Amino acid sequence: MENPFTDEYFMKKALQEAELAFDKGEIPVGAVIVIDNKVIARTHNLTEMLHDVTAHAEMQAITSAANFIGGKYLKGCTLYVTLEPCQMCAGALYWSQISKVVFGASDEQRGFEKLGTQLHPKTQVIKGVLAQEASDLMVRFFASKRK
Amino acid sequence: MENPFTDEYFMKKALQEAELAFDKGEIPVGAVIVIDNKVIARTHNLTEMLHDVTAHAEMQAITSAANFIGGKYLKGCTLYVTLEPCQMCAGALYWSQISKVVFGASDEQRGFEKLGTQLHPKTQVIKGVLAQEASDLMVRFFASKRK
Repeated sequence: MENPFTDEYFMKKALQEAELAFDKGEIPVGAVIVIDNKVIARTHNLTEMLHDVTAHAEMQAITSAANFIGGKYLKGCTLYVTLEPCQMCAGALYWSQISKVVFGASDEQRGFEKLGTQLHPKTQVIKGVLAQEASDLMVRFFASKRK
Repeated sequence: MENPFTDEYFMKKALQEAELAFDKGEIPVGAVIVIDNKVIARTHNLTEMLHDVTAHAEMQAITSAANFIGGKYLKGCTLYVTLEPCQMCAGALYWSQISKVVFGASDEQRGFEKLGTQLHPKTQVIKGVLAQEASDLMVRFFASKRK
């Protein structure tokens, strides 16, 4: 039998979180953290609602997953996030020593790759998973804001 | 009369916070955020106690100051922190558009300057304020951990 727990499977859950952000008028970015095929954190961007620039989906997911695990290192965990992490979130991922980061759409302007933020050497990065869906959601969000 | 509200004045308050971290067995980094010569946030590193890599002094200070202000941008604010911010904290400071960052000791390995993390173009940076005091505290901390 085929393994149902693909990167696409979990990225769909992150996209569901991004939709929740969208509905709240937040820039629609969602994230989940998974260990042993189990979702242990699901979060979405809340920077507007909380008036807090640190409330990116990834930051909340890291805190939430660490709380679940009862330790600050996320070894064995995978983060799925709909948009490429920024410098802040990549910096947090560095400290967490997370095993794998999977992101959807690239952020050419503020993504960590272009800005050269260092991840932990043990962290594997996969990009472009359901990128079109994540990107469409962003485009739809900013179009709705311009109205 | 001389202005009593110098960078050293507020950095001493950040050092007091770092001492509190020290007493809890946390890497001793402290921070305060100031607006119009008034301290609106005082925090210290709590990564061990909270099992959370995002609980750096600066991150908590940003959240706390934004909460005080009731908005996510820290324009007109100054962060005083005893150690050079890391990538994560510098990335958060970028989003906050904070007006000024003053730090004590440099962090040659994990500080944002060497790693090239981008701050907001409007953010002024001053370094080396009471650097020796901050550095001495770190040395004392790691010496006590080796015993």
